[in-house]
Amino acid sequence: MRENRSDAKQKKRSKILNLIRERKGCSRSEIATALDIDKKSVSLVVDDLLAQELVLPVGFRDSQAGRRQELLAVNGSHTNYIGIDLGATHITGVRTDLNCLVLDRVFFEVRPGLAVDLILEQMKSIIKTLMSSDSGTGKLKSIGVCLPGFVNPVDGISLVAENIPGWHEIRIRKILGEEIHKSVYIEDCSRAMGLAERWLGKGGEVDDFLVLDLGYGIGMALFLNGDLYTGSGYKSGEIGHTVVDKDGPVCTCGKKGCLEVYASGRGIAQIASDGVKSNQSGILEELIHGDIKSLTAQDVALAASMNDEHSLQIIGAAGEYIGTALSNVVNILNPKKIIIGGGLTGAGKPLFDSIAKALQAHTMKEIIADLKLEQSDLGVDVSARGSALVAMEHVFS
Amino acid sequence: MRENRSDAKQKKRSKILNLIRERKGCSRSEIATALDIDKKSVSLVVDDLLAQELVLPVGFRDSQAGRRQELLAVNGSHTNYIGIDLGATHITGVRTDLNCLVLDRVFFEVRPGLAVDLILEQMKSIIKTLMSSDSGTGKLKSIGVCLPGFVNPVDGISLVAENIPGWHEIRIRKILGEEIHKSVYIEDCSRAMGLAERWLGKGGEVDDFLVLDLGYGIGMALFLNGDLYTGSGYKSGEIGHTVVDKDGPVCTCGKKGCLEVYASGRGIAQIASDGVKSNQSGILEELIHGDIKSLTAQDVALAASMNDEHSLQIIGAAGEYIGTALSNVVNILNPKKIIIGGGLTGAGKPLFDSIAKALQAHTMKEIIADLKLEQSDLGVDVSARGSALVAMEHVFS
Repeated sequence: MRENRSDAKQKKRSKILNLIRERKGCSRSEIATALDIDKKSVSLVVDDLLAQELVLPVGFRDSQAGRRQELLAVNGSHTNYIGIDLGATHITGVRTDLNCLVLDRVFFEVRPGLAVDLILEQMKSIIKTLMSSDSGTGKLKSIGVCLPGFVNPVDGISLVAENIPGWHEIRIRKILGEEIHKSVYIEDCSRAMGLAERWLGKGGEVDDFLVLDLGYGIGMALFLNGDLYTGSGYKSGEIGHTVVDKDGPVCTCGKKGCLEVYASGRGIAQIASDGVKSNQSGILEELIHGDIKSLTAQDVALAASMNDEHSLQIIGAAGEYIGTALSNVVNILNPKKIIIGGGLTGAGKPLFDSIAKALQAHTMKEIIADLKLEQSDLGVDVSARGSALVAMEHVFS
Repeated sequence: MRENRSDAKQKKRSKILNLIRERKGCSRSEIATALDIDKKSVSLVVDDLLAQELVLPVGFRDSQAGRRQELLAVNGSHTNYIGIDLGATHITGVRTDLNCLVLDRVFFEVRPGLAVDLILEQMKSIIKTLMSSDSGTGKLKSIGVCLPGFVNPVDGISLVAENIPGWHEIRIRKILGEEIHKSVYIEDCSRAMGLAERWLGKGGEVDDFLVLDLGYGIGMALFLNGDLYTGSGYKSGEIGHTVVDKDGPVCTCGKKGCLEVYASGRGIAQIASDGVKSNQSGILEELIHGDIKSLTAQDVALAASMNDEHSLQIIGAAGEYIGTALSNVVNILNPKKIIIGGGLTGAGKPLFDSIAKALQAHTMKEIIADLKLEQSDLGVDVSARGSALVAMEHVFS
């Protein structure tokens, strides 16, 4: 029974701290009202959080009764965290404060096909660079790493990443922990992006929403009843491997006609390469100086923005496939909002319009009436910041 | 704060009562261990439940320490409930005890196209029949009704049912309540089926599972993290209206190429009718004595069981579409189990094998490795019993 009481106390502390984080400036009596906890209990917890310097007074507000109320917010400079986002084409690292504001940033472009050992070395080097900029303060507490494919966050293992050749059962926590001597937490990249949207972006005020991560691969984070839903084996969100044409070409996962074949960064680059080879786009060929191997989805997006017919058509078709796959998820889950993020959103309006049109066409009218479709505005560091959130999650739980 | 304490007390009571329901015979010390509550608190709650006759002693078991432990179970005869399942082709009504054992049953076949008023009259008449068999005991407490399409359970309104022509914004709670003077609860039919699987069937020991309801329409109940997930607007589970061929024929919902067009009872009957018209199945034509309008999916299943080539092909194709649509849901949600139920499961092995094969082909290998595919064994009353569970849910919460 004692355990139960200490659990309840911890839960109360976590609720109060998270409310302070969400509201970015709220008073003790606001907390008491919002959480239905008596004022004395709130003050006891808040005094403790102030003593730990986890929260800070940030000003005053006059209450309706005319009394000045002290406002509280999370003390960003309490501790620092590093977030690493490993993608198939990049490693992004950020050091953030406890409010997840970016203090330092490192970006490294990965050439698809780079050896696994070299990727790991590069990741360590980025972490050390970010650590050195914190030298002496002792504020750096832990490191979060997000990875594509399947992860086992409990054991800190990256199980497989189809889009990184040779990447298999990599014990990230052990490999990094041995060299860096900090706690290491891992998560799936799309879920890290989802956490960033939840805490910093457009997912703050809805309980049921999806975050679609359009990049070299395509992933998804699901927030259901307010919580990140990971599935029974931590493998939820594989919209990139839902089937859009069951007789289509083979995907990296071994199945046929997955969404990623037609609409991922990898898929778009492949389709565009085939087009350049058959002389369908002069603009695209010029942009890449004839070096077909270097062609990326970014090039296709750029050519589309220059009104290249072939590139516009590829982007439009990709959007149609994405919107159709998305409609299937929406018909099943009836979410309130979809937030679209990831590198491919650089393709802009032609992609977004095409997604929206297909989503409208294939979703039940009663269900789409409830739905908002939005673009992320968190920029390129979104998943790296999400990883920093993963690293600091235990502070708030 | 007093409110919080009474909430906590209610929660403890609910946890204990539900454990007794699940275990169907457990001792006070087992409850204390399973729920991590001290024995004295457990005994206080149990004494109260015994006094209310909600639970009963059902025997003894010797503990390891050699002491005889009294076993407790829910007292089925405490109260009675009525559950009604309105389908497009039937109304099934059951009266059950508090363990959801069926005491009486009424089945009424609805000819597709029957007028809304007549359906409602028939429903009232079935409820009255079931009530009369309980006359005098005063044990009948409340009524649960499940309906196809979209429902608003908060206001007790059946919003729309595409498969029942003219069915729109029917205020079920009000209509039935005024005549019957009992509390009326409503739910979606597939979710009622899901609740029955959760409490009585194969969904008891997993937290993440799907119940696929294959009938005249196709629906789905989602249990995620142990709870029924209803979506942001109570419209989750519309797998029947996910798109399997975006250029396919128009569905009752107005969209094109929905799963229901190819694989629902309605869809299968339509496809088979077209086949009989073009002389593709002599067996089927004989079975229905040439009356094409009377042809149902049950006839197709029967002809398939008699090795009618055309019918086998229709059932096989339906299974392939169902398995493909299901794989998309599985790739997104990574459930532990899928339970398949509903009238169409009468088509047996050809349908089930075809579903399993397509599911295998289109689901990521890492995800299907976690998954069990099973058939419901709760029989034709499953949704009606689920409705009775909806009616008695408040007793346990």
